[in-house]
Amino acid sequence: VISGNPAVIGVDMGATKILSGLVNGKHEVLARDKRKTGAGDGPKVVLERVADSIRECLKAAVNNNLAVEAVGIGLPGPLDTEKGIVLEAPNLEGWTNVPVRDTLREALGLEVYIENDANMGALGEAVLGAGRGRDIAMGVFVGSGIGGGIVINGKLFRGHKGIAGEVGHMIIRDGKRGSLEDNAGRLSIAAKIKKRILSGQESVMTEAALADKRITSGMIRQALDSGDPVVTPIMEKAMTYLSRGCASLVNIFDPSVIILGGGVVEAMPEWVVKRVSKQTRELVIGRGEAKDLEIVAAELGDDSALLGSVIWAEQKSGGA
Amino acid sequence: VISGNPAVIGVDMGATKILSGLVNGKHEVLARDKRKTGAGDGPKVVLERVADSIRECLKAAVNNNLAVEAVGIGLPGPLDTEKGIVLEAPNLEGWTNVPVRDTLREALGLEVYIENDANMGALGEAVLGAGRGRDIAMGVFVGSGIGGGIVINGKLFRGHKGIAGEVGHMIIRDGKRGSLEDNAGRLSIAAKIKKRILSGQESVMTEAALADKRITSGMIRQALDSGDPVVTPIMEKAMTYLSRGCASLVNIFDPSVIILGGGVVEAMPEWVVKRVSKQTRELVIGRGEAKDLEIVAAELGDDSALLGSVIWAEQKSGGA
Repeated sequence: VISGNPAVIGVDMGATKILSGLVNGKHEVLARDKRKTGAGDGPKVVLERVADSIRECLKAAVNNNLAVEAVGIGLPGPLDTEKGIVLEAPNLEGWTNVPVRDTLREALGLEVYIENDANMGALGEAVLGAGRGRDIAMGVFVGSGIGGGIVINGKLFRGHKGIAGEVGHMIIRDGKRGSLEDNAGRLSIAAKIKKRILSGQESVMTEAALADKRITSGMIRQALDSGDPVVTPIMEKAMTYLSRGCASLVNIFDPSVIILGGGVVEAMPEWVVKRVSKQTRELVIGRGEAKDLEIVAAELGDDSALLGSVIWAEQKSGGA
Repeated sequence: VISGNPAVIGVDMGATKILSGLVNGKHEVLARDKRKTGAGDGPKVVLERVADSIRECLKAAVNNNLAVEAVGIGLPGPLDTEKGIVLEAPNLEGWTNVPVRDTLREALGLEVYIENDANMGALGEAVLGAGRGRDIAMGVFVGSGIGGGIVINGKLFRGHKGIAGEVGHMIIRDGKRGSLEDNAGRLSIAAKIKKRILSGQESVMTEAALADKRITSGMIRQALDSGDPVVTPIMEKAMTYLSRGCASLVNIFDPSVIILGGGVVEAMPEWVVKRVSKQTRELVIGRGEAKDLEIVAAELGDDSALLGSVIWAEQKSGGA
């Protein structure tokens, strides 16, 4: 029997899209399959879509003479990694105790390893992206909410129950909405923008806000570029809160690199990194902590959780 | 040559006292020497006192037929553990770039290992005290300020530059005094008590406050016991902030145990643990994180940093 060179398929499954990739031993993505999650169809149909997406990568493996050894999947949690079960995914309809691993293992005949998507993004960036070669990396991903992950010497730090890295739930302010996510996540930013516009302030987003359209990171970026009087101060304030969260992370965890990613950062990486880097340093200044600290934008874009899932599958299967 | 059983000397050196202990292989403290730091005399004299204190333990080792292999010292930082230098100790006069390790090594002819005192307290409690047998332990020590340490599988997690665990510097509120320490440390509590009393509120502490006496943890305990109308709400509020900090630590780090120690906790362990345990759980509830989490009081009392320093010296010298 002649078998091809080893490969792993990584999958980033979110509330809106499924992204699968065929990845070789050099961690090059040789083929991708992207499709809509269609979360409204429920877990059974969605998992069939994930399987179909993985099958496209399997076909590509055949074409590339590669032997797929395992599948790694990053998806919303909380989940039970050991049992391969998503316990609860608030962003996905009907996802309670979904046996993702066993369902896909049976459908595909391959070993499947699952983990939280933010953890996978952090692992991907830490090992292959912006944290390459650094000892302690923290990923902080600003999307609709804020997720994160901790990577120590190339290994994911999962904590006692596997929920370490939930940086968005840090409490940084008084009041009921005092978490980092409540003050610097896209949904909280969008809510503040809408509120100001509805109270009569002029903005390039007035039309979108009045039509109750989704306020995307791209729209925020455009508004910033035009110096919008509503969006600019709200975003500046959000960066102050994000810096506050990062400073606490430095004081607790002392990472060598904080990697900022997620939709909001990807839409305006330099704008975000400049502010967070400066303000975080100011908040921890005087004790030398921030001297070596790097605060950088994620490098792998859409592939960070996909590649992190590959690393995860390799580590769990003993392949690396 | 017949040599005795191996032993290590642990030292907890603070701004007010030096506590040394002779510790055998079973981690029993066989002898102690306690003396005042006399920080005003400067580093040279203080280090001579530390050496004298250690010599008392060396004499006890002779009497017990034990061979001292190393000395571990926990002391205020920041410090350079690798070089054995205290870089800066704000609570000690004139301590800038003090070569503690080399000075004591020369004076005593023994290997000396130094680390931050809060880290040593956390290590001692995690390995030999309230965190015994748990995988991930966080020590949170509420004294004049708030320090802490992280222990993963019995090993101190120091971070990239050795400053991990500075939990007191977490930012938990808006404003200039927004750190955990600024809202739940003894100095901040004492300042609030004095302020209220000076504004005319009645308290059992009125006399002490007007005489500008130091407000100790013991005085706070007595005031709580008597239901004091000034101290009680201030302390309740401080516990809310401390819980907020602990909840953030759970979300970031997912420890299996949080060990609360330090003077404030030691003076009223049950009162503190009851409140912090309840409120921390409420703040992280709904995601299952707090189910297994233990929040407990430190067990080793004055010996926590001393014993942590012994563990540290054992691990660094390869003795354990």
